[in-house]
Amino acid sequence: MNNENTLPDQTISDVISAVTFDANGLVPVIAQQHDTGEILMMAWMNADALRETLASHQVCYWSRSRQSLWRKGESSGQIQALVDLRWDCDGDTLLAMVDQTGVACHTGRRNCFFNAVRDDKLATIAPVEIDPGSLYDT
Amino acid sequence: MNNENTLPDQTISDVISAVTFDANGLVPVIAQQHDTGEILMMAWMNADALRETLASHQVCYWSRSRQSLWRKGESSGQIQALVDLRWDCDGDTLLAMVDQTGVACHTGRRNCFFNAVRDDKLATIAPVEIDPGSLYDT
Repeated sequence: MNNENTLPDQTISDVISAVTFDANGLVPVIAQQHDTGEILMMAWMNADALRETLASHQVCYWSRSRQSLWRKGESSGQIQALVDLRWDCDGDTLLAMVDQTGVACHTGRRNCFFNAVRDDKLATIAPVEIDPGSLYDT
Repeated sequence: MNNENTLPDQTISDVISAVTFDANGLVPVIAQQHDTGEILMMAWMNADALRETLASHQVCYWSRSRQSLWRKGESSGQIQALVDLRWDCDGDTLLAMVDQTGVACHTGRRNCFFNAVRDDKLATIAPVEIDPGSLYDT
């Protein structure tokens, strides 16, 4: 990666072969904003989603609830442009370094990890930036 | 969190109740170096591991291969001090913001995500910083 050139099909196949998919054919994917280090979300890919992501440079997950490819931002416009893809020592987790348009979270927050403990109580630590109704009514 | 005080048992129980564990009783955990944003590794916790992590402020995972609690760094010394714990919108992924001693990866690299594509070829993009033999011979 490290550029926007199209990857050869063989390279894409080599990446897919290097990844260990679980019993359901899925691998967890951490999406990180490439320049700030912010962790945006965690979702899943199957081999087809990974292939499409590498070929298109737009992140495509596998929706476990809908059992279908989930082209991130297709309905909301909140797309993730792929900047770099990395995988871990065991090949069973992916790290997608992306450039997030707008917000990553369906709640309208920039990232999904907005729950924490503050003053010994469960707290929401990030504001809603975009009305979630406006993300999915289009 | 945001401090090193002991959390009340009730708060720990509230966090565990807010988390959705999968069919195997596990939840994926992303470990991020708290000050640099570097993603160190991804591993799993069950409720006991999460409880111990929150009570001790030292990250404890569940080892799926050994089927036992995995007190990160117990044998290698490469511990992760917990700085903050966050969970996502669905409660099914945790983000542990930590202060990593030494290296996170069993290969002796700082983080586990050292595989990538460079010049259309699969490449290792991070050096071994500590001889892995020295991590586990003790």
